[in-house]
Amino acid sequence: MDTVTLGPAGTYSHRAASAVSAGDVSFMESVRDIVDAVAVGDADRGVVPIENSIQGSVTETLDALADTDGLAVVREVVTPIRHALLAQDDGFDAVASHAQALAQCREYLDATHPAVDRRAVASTARGVEVARNDETTAAIAHPDSADGTELDVHGSGIQDRASNETRFFVVGPASERTPAGGKSSIIVYPNANHPGLLLELLEPFADRNINLSRVESRPSGERLGDYVFHVDIASGCYEERTRNAVADVAEIAAAGWVRRLGSYDTEHVA
Amino acid sequence: MDTVTLGPAGTYSHRAASAVSAGDVSFMESVRDIVDAVAVGDADRGVVPIENSIQGSVTETLDALADTDGLAVVREVVTPIRHALLAQDDGFDAVASHAQALAQCREYLDATHPAVDRRAVASTARGVEVARNDETTAAIAHPDSADGTELDVHGSGIQDRASNETRFFVVGPASERTPAGGKSSIIVYPNANHPGLLLELLEPFADRNINLSRVESRPSGERLGDYVFHVDIASGCYEERTRNAVADVAEIAAAGWVRRLGSYDTEHVA
Repeated sequence: MDTVTLGPAGTYSHRAASAVSAGDVSFMESVRDIVDAVAVGDADRGVVPIENSIQGSVTETLDALADTDGLAVVREVVTPIRHALLAQDDGFDAVASHAQALAQCREYLDATHPAVDRRAVASTARGVEVARNDETTAAIAHPDSADGTELDVHGSGIQDRASNETRFFVVGPASERTPAGGKSSIIVYPNANHPGLLLELLEPFADRNINLSRVESRPSGERLGDYVFHVDIASGCYEERTRNAVADVAEIAAAGWVRRLGSYDTEHVA
Repeated sequence: MDTVTLGPAGTYSHRAASAVSAGDVSFMESVRDIVDAVAVGDADRGVVPIENSIQGSVTETLDALADTDGLAVVREVVTPIRHALLAQDDGFDAVASHAQALAQCREYLDATHPAVDRRAVASTARGVEVARNDETTAAIAHPDSADGTELDVHGSGIQDRASNETRFFVVGPASERTPAGGKSSIIVYPNANHPGLLLELLEPFADRNINLSRVESRPSGERLGDYVFHVDIASGCYEERTRNAVADVAEIAAAGWVRRLGSYDTEHVA
């Protein structure tokens, strides 16, 4: 079972993929590439970040899922983000990491290393690579990234907020949609705009006492104010109430489309 | 009347600010800096991008508005994004621009300049600066950026979608909230999570036949699944139905807070 995720080795995506994959994990450079690889059958599973508790939605993932046919979400994985400051020794005057990781450690850096230059690179793993090759540069990444390298952990749990978690979707071909799971995701493009439209789209769930865990709007790309809605609900696709609610939504969105991504349960990995 | 916006000179933010400002326009490096400058009285007005018809919300702006007291949205400006390819001559082998501008012209670049290297820089204006200093690098920016420079326009209207617009908010101190305007924005943090909560928050508007033009959720930063909601409605703050609806929302969000950003009309500038 081949799994693809965002590389290089050592990213938080890699950690999530390793936790849920029995086979090989290989790397791609963008979420779009991963989703495409699964859709055309070049990979069995893709692991993509969907939401972080501080940064919010990963819009690249929402848009790739909305644009791609033939995919299912088969699992959901939540993993804590724990940042550490890694360096060869104390003599660093710069710190390299993904822009989001730098932002998530801003208060720590302001307080402990105000004079150190902050350099945004493509991934936390790339920052580690830089720090391994350059003793004047530190990295911010998971503390395990220092294992087996010349890097020391100079500070651990340095993110500004104690609660920092990222949700990942494990995607597979639609044919392998799981029969069970207590949460479901759908994407709706109503291709319409009138007073009360969003409310109409949400009522079929409320009428059946189905909790909406998340509603996110993304531009359709057609015109300003025209949206695609991503809806997560706390109810399985196999449940009659879910099937009926989604059927009602499909009727409201008759001028557009509804994509049923499938059902899953949340798994927490360390 | 001093106005601050995202610099350097020549950005789309600068174009929007110039169109609505009678006085001086000066530049800052981040939305957060602009919002702070207006909140503490260092500037009279700030012009910040809130949403693009292709890329979606500018989350940095949503979060800065949610975090800052004492601000009002006094105007809304919508401006078309029109990209051009600018270079000293035909001998370029790279193109520099903001990552979003490069993404918005991907199909054009694939078709006409597949071998040209794409380099992401901090702003479209910074790309123009690079192209002016380096004849091997082109820029993507508004065609007016070539005026008075050695750069020629090698392609105009090169964005992949005809409809590409950005909405900007003009923010001022809360004391200058305008008395009129047919659209309003509020931010709600319910600090609660139960089945039907989002629906409850939207019903006060639907019950009064007020159209929701946009609902966006942003993480509260407290825990995964806990959100701050940004709500735009097609109704003025001065209207009784709006006041009553927002009062109902404030009651539902009694454990959290509601921020009334004010009312405005949409102005389109070229």
